[in-house]
Amino acid sequence: MKILVTTIPFGQKDRKPLEILESVGADIQINPLGRKLTETDLADLIPGTDILIAGTEPITESVLDRANQLKLIARVGIGLDSVDLLAARARQVAVSYTPDAPSPAVAELTIGLMIDLLRNSHVSNLRLHQGVWYRFFGKRLTEVTIGIIGLGRIGSRVVKHLAGFDCQSILVNDINPEVQTPEHPNCKVRRVEVDQIFHEADIISIHIPLSPATKDLITARQIEQMKPEVLLINTSRGGIINESDLYNALNAERIGGAAVDVFEHEPYIGPLNGMDNCLLTAHMGSMSVDCRTQMELEACEEAARFIMNQPLQSSVPEEEFENRSA
Amino acid sequence: MKILVTTIPFGQKDRKPLEILESVGADIQINPLGRKLTETDLADLIPGTDILIAGTEPITESVLDRANQLKLIARVGIGLDSVDLLAARARQVAVSYTPDAPSPAVAELTIGLMIDLLRNSHVSNLRLHQGVWYRFFGKRLTEVTIGIIGLGRIGSRVVKHLAGFDCQSILVNDINPEVQTPEHPNCKVRRVEVDQIFHEADIISIHIPLSPATKDLITARQIEQMKPEVLLINTSRGGIINESDLYNALNAERIGGAAVDVFEHEPYIGPLNGMDNCLLTAHMGSMSVDCRTQMELEACEEAARFIMNQPLQSSVPEEEFENRSA
Repeated sequence: MKILVTTIPFGQKDRKPLEILESVGADIQINPLGRKLTETDLADLIPGTDILIAGTEPITESVLDRANQLKLIARVGIGLDSVDLLAARARQVAVSYTPDAPSPAVAELTIGLMIDLLRNSHVSNLRLHQGVWYRFFGKRLTEVTIGIIGLGRIGSRVVKHLAGFDCQSILVNDINPEVQTPEHPNCKVRRVEVDQIFHEADIISIHIPLSPATKDLITARQIEQMKPEVLLINTSRGGIINESDLYNALNAERIGGAAVDVFEHEPYIGPLNGMDNCLLTAHMGSMSVDCRTQMELEACEEAARFIMNQPLQSSVPEEEFENRSA
Repeated sequence: MKILVTTIPFGQKDRKPLEILESVGADIQINPLGRKLTETDLADLIPGTDILIAGTEPITESVLDRANQLKLIARVGIGLDSVDLLAARARQVAVSYTPDAPSPAVAELTIGLMIDLLRNSHVSNLRLHQGVWYRFFGKRLTEVTIGIIGLGRIGSRVVKHLAGFDCQSILVNDINPEVQTPEHPNCKVRRVEVDQIFHEADIISIHIPLSPATKDLITARQIEQMKPEVLLINTSRGGIINESDLYNALNAERIGGAAVDVFEHEPYIGPLNGMDNCLLTAHMGSMSVDCRTQMELEACEEAARFIMNQPLQSSVPEEEFENRSA
């Protein structure tokens, strides 16, 4: 069995994921370009591959057309926006993912970004590195109304951490009414319509998947409804906040600031690089040693199960396919 | 009564502190230089002043020699390292402070700095603003051993916030055996000698006052004992971590990084400005609107009480004077 590992880094802090693949006798090729692959890169590499241990590179219909031996895509991570699920199914390619592993790291980074934005410590750091003493008057988490969009694995964890700060004004929203509203002592959480979050929140953090329904969830029109000093955080997927509208809002100081970890095209180079009021990180949400290792382990275990003819344990759920057909 | 307000900003987000002073008919002068005063600045401004609403500028014996009418120093904040307490007492100048007000803001900033350092988001932000995609492999708060030096109002709050992240390895130290060790569900706190923190912690945060006993608590000799990737945080007072030894350790990459909010001389300009692995903020620990307003209010209320011949409510405790005599 030939395995292509495209996600990077891989096996860097812990060799165990690699050892799992070796133990089942796989022929392993690791991303030879050392960067996120483009559609063309992947199309060139995929022929002859049986199992793809995938990052967020585009696994499109035209890539799958070149995938003459592909039987399994094991995504290292939770997002499936990069995978054409229906095209994979049509070609009898199984798809698995690691939905739980990244959440703790993303939630924790989000809290750090919230405090940075509220206190402007990122701007102070930029200025001091330019030799300028820049003292900023910020706010605490308990002074503001925090809006959380998406109450899945990550959003609910963000709320849990906020409870450790005794936050009394957390507005939450989830499109799925069956998803429970988190409850914590010393913390006040209200479930509201997403428009109320746009109107009332001082800081808004997005924790939803990218899909045709969530693309451009926040554009100039939604920003228009927001408070003049609102702070926006996106650690989910690029495109949910429209990048060019965000740039315009930051440039016009229509909003207080933003923290962006995910971009429409990565690695990102673009106008946000020039905005000091935009805290930029390089898709590092899941990049903690423990979460990253767990993601790699789970994906490699799926690959090993597949090779050993054992049932997969984290196949992408049927509803993900149904959403695509809709 | 003539009141000199040296702390800046003052009354900026909320006029109420100023209104308190106005309500007791005081003649108010606000820092005419708009920056932290030097000893000489203050010596020039102090003659004729009855009450000083003070920041962190040096209130030394030679300043007090010029203070021909001074009766009260009301410090906006908790630190007393800038005040020659014994010289004030010898001249029958009362000293009050606001020990509780700044703590929530400092503790919250500290958590933000911890996450920034662990995830290197500050370096990623610097690089992305230079147009370079810099992805870093970090750690979560639960993956590391956290050392907290000082369990007063701020240190104990930092531990409380960490409990919201389920941290299982927190080492704490306080020089005073009567200070209680914080206990929280879902969180493991061990009280140890400070040397054990130096040896075992992956991240060390300082929450103690500056005094002759704590100056240079951390020099090259202590850094020598630390783990090679240790991260140091100082939001207390400059000088507790020796600045030039810290620079050398960062420059030699002997430690993983540092976050410095407080400096021996402020505004700070110096070699740390050139170190990307040093997250720099401009003495912003207490700079949240709520805490800053509370500090200003409490100091002004003390001044008003003094003018109305009412007893002070937060005089500096006797032990602070005793420590100086020792």
